Amino acid sequence: MEKTKVAIIGLGTVGSGVARLLLDFGDRTARHAGRTLWLEKAVVRNLAGSRDCELPEGVLTDQLQDVIVDPEIKVVAQLIGGLEPARTIMLQLLESGKDVVTANKALLAEHGPEIFDRARELGRCVAFEASVAGGIPIIANIGQCLSANQLQSLHGILNGTSNFILSKMHEDGSAYDEVVAEAQRLGYAEADPAMDVDGTDAAQKLAILAHLGFGARVHWAEIPRSGIDTLDLADVRNAQEMGYKIKLLAVAQLVVDSTGNEGLELHVSPTLVKSGRPLAEVGGPYNAIRVVGDAVGQLLFYGPGAGQMPTASAVVADMIDVAVGRSPITFRTLELWSDRQARVAPADYANARGRFYLRVTVDDSPGVLAQITQALGEQDISIASVLQHEPETGGQAISLVIMTHETTEGAASQASEKMSKLACVQTPPVRMWVRD
Amino acid sequence: MEKTKVAIIGLGTVGSGVARLLLDFGDRTARHAGRTLWLEKAVVRNLAGSRDCELPEGVLTDQLQDVIVDPEIKVVAQLIGGLEPARTIMLQLLESGKDVVTANKALLAEHGPEIFDRARELGRCVAFEASVAGGIPIIANIGQCLSANQLQSLHGILNGTSNFILSKMHEDGSAYDEVVAEAQRLGYAEADPAMDVDGTDAAQKLAILAHLGFGARVHWAEIPRSGIDTLDLADVRNAQEMGYKIKLLAVAQLVVDSTGNEGLELHVSPTLVKSGRPLAEVGGPYNAIRVVGDAVGQLLFYGPGAGQMPTASAVVADMIDVAVGRSPITFRTLELWSDRQARVAPADYANARGRFYLRVTVDDSPGVLAQITQALGEQDISIASVLQHEPETGGQAISLVIMTHETTEGAASQASEKMSKLACVQTPPVRMWVRD
Repeated sequence: MEKTKVAIIGLGTVGSGVARLLLDFGDRTARHAGRTLWLEKAVVRNLAGSRDCELPEGVLTDQLQDVIVDPEIKVVAQLIGGLEPARTIMLQLLESGKDVVTANKALLAEHGPEIFDRARELGRCVAFEASVAGGIPIIANIGQCLSANQLQSLHGILNGTSNFILSKMHEDGSAYDEVVAEAQRLGYAEADPAMDVDGTDAAQKLAILAHLGFGARVHWAEIPRSGIDTLDLADVRNAQEMGYKIKLLAVAQLVVDSTGNEGLELHVSPTLVKSGRPLAEVGGPYNAIRVVGDAVGQLLFYGPGAGQMPTASAVVADMIDVAVGRSPITFRTLELWSDRQARVAPADYANARGRFYLRVTVDDSPGVLAQITQALGEQDISIASVLQHEPETGGQAISLVIMTHETTEGAASQASEKMSKLACVQTPPVRMWVRD
Repeated sequence: MEKTKVAIIGLGTVGSGVARLLLDFGDRTARHAGRTLWLEKAVVRNLAGSRDCELPEGVLTDQLQDVIVDPEIKVVAQLIGGLEPARTIMLQLLESGKDVVTANKALLAEHGPEIFDRARELGRCVAFEASVAGGIPIIANIGQCLSANQLQSLHGILNGTSNFILSKMHEDGSAYDEVVAEAQRLGYAEADPAMDVDGTDAAQKLAILAHLGFGARVHWAEIPRSGIDTLDLADVRNAQEMGYKIKLLAVAQLVVDSTGNEGLELHVSPTLVKSGRPLAEVGGPYNAIRVVGDAVGQLLFYGPGAGQMPTASAVVADMIDVAVGRSPITFRTLELWSDRQARVAPADYANARGRFYLRVTVDDSPGVLAQITQALGEQDISIASVLQHEPETGGQAISLVIMTHETTEGAASQASEKMSKLACVQTPPVRMWVRD
């Protein structure tokens, strides 16, 4: 049987998983690729480090050069995280004639244009299924399977850490800090989970999907985003009482403005999703993506968004696709990250329409509700429902929860700001999107 | 821009949808294929027939020969249903050098081996995404995206008509016949829905998925199947009362028998699925497929399982894949339907393990429950729960519902048969699988 020599750069969690799939299940890849994917080299920084796989004699090396100079190695899984040296290694691999598979979404979100342009110039390809939503094949589905559609919208739970934390807060009624500590113990959160919980990770993935699915050319840092790191358990309880669950949603929505111009609304925000809707019921560290295409209608993809073997599953599928020649075709025809392909500009976030949840802590005194509702009225925002519990004994503050009818993000934002300045308001309003 | 000439055979519902996508949204396919898919011919039986699309001058023809003899037509969407003349036309197209896209699952389930072998001999390819689960790209996902996995199990809601009927019976509490009539009015059921509601359609789709995902070589007619056509509203009510919903599930489950041999359990059965589980909540005419792979874990795909534009979306995606050269690679490497690839034999259905729901109508007299439970005890079946309502006034019969603990299909079947022969039993037991 034909043999394609491959290499892995980085034997961390995902790299070790990839090595195990290639070594322990070679017959499987042979069956699906019509050829053996032969692991020739695995490059690590420190030969003495401990790792989660056993390699045959001669495979392990700390010399990237061993891969670079071997013309027989055709496909390389580049599994180093972070921006550097990942970027430099990526370019070196392409320049030495390798096709590259990567799971590094931060690298693509930051340096995608440079990397993809260079690959094109060199006649090489980059495959990146594992960079978004782990084991869910969302890149292939959007890039290939839905190619007869104009995508209308995409709503994704793209960060497993955040979803684990939110699910736990809903289920156990535990506070944010407690749940983060538990997530860290269970391996669902990093020692420093900042990028996961502040919306950065989801925004980077959304930028990649917006590029691929809508032809938007947007840098992740331009995407309005808020995370779950400031979420109060009170909001979780209120959401539940009103029949919703809070999810960190990444949203891309095609809109047409009053002058007939198309734009793409993009944001990452904690969102109250109506209980019973598929996205509301995605629990634990799972991811899910709801995609609407104009021909196909609504599709939902659900699965593990991270983890060693799910991510390795996506990496090895890409390695097979590259080895058999499918990925190079996809890469060529889609002109990924090419400026020629920019088709839609990000829409003004202030014009994004939707319903909002507002929680504001106010003095327990007469006339307060009138002042709050006036701030909304001035922005033409109608109120759909109000929730105000009896104040706790001895409390001087009450918590007022308002669900609005449809309005714009800009109006809701201005109303919030107005409220913040009222003498009766003790802390600035908490504001979240609502999705029925 | 490069141009690939394509043709459509059959301008029924799906064919018209495909024509519209190709004609009205040519820029879209051009963008995803890097070339124009140019609709050169559309072949119909009757030129005077009415159809749901407008074609440019010269495209419509009633002569298949116009396609056969034109060497410039490279890709043909063969969208005629049924077995003949679909089979003959399929072979003619392949023999005249065309790659073929089809949505005809019955044809593939019946004549797959012949068609795929012939295509291979001729160096051609057949793409069939639209043949299973309409707009859900399950063929690409199983055939390509999960190629690093050994699939462990597949549970699918594959027949939209049945799912619409079941959902309506649950929601409205209407009887089977009423709901079928409504489904027909709404276009969710054919005038003769027999193949949809008796499990045939789902079994044909399951045979294709079992082939693709597990390497099984099984003819659909060998798959044990029962439909929803004999379902009583009483069972729907009982299921609901016990916290379940009835779904027509197509199941493929890899099992290892006591001698260590792998086998593939296959069946299509009305099944009580625990409410709240994703498959239980798939409503209306939607389809969903839950797949477990040993690396990736659990994935769920949800979307429209039928309908004009969702199916057309899958057909056109295949046409693009064929035109750019991805499908031919997939077809070559996967050796679809090739006997060389048979990897697992169907397991004995009698050994399939699971829980069961039994409803039996019995005389309202002493000792009856003892006789029924003895029939179960003789097969070593333990009872998990029993539901017996007060008999209706004046009734001589009571309905006894039993949920078993895990047992085998064979034991449950024998216990049912034993019960049928008891003097106190008025009608043979209704028996369904239970899935928690």
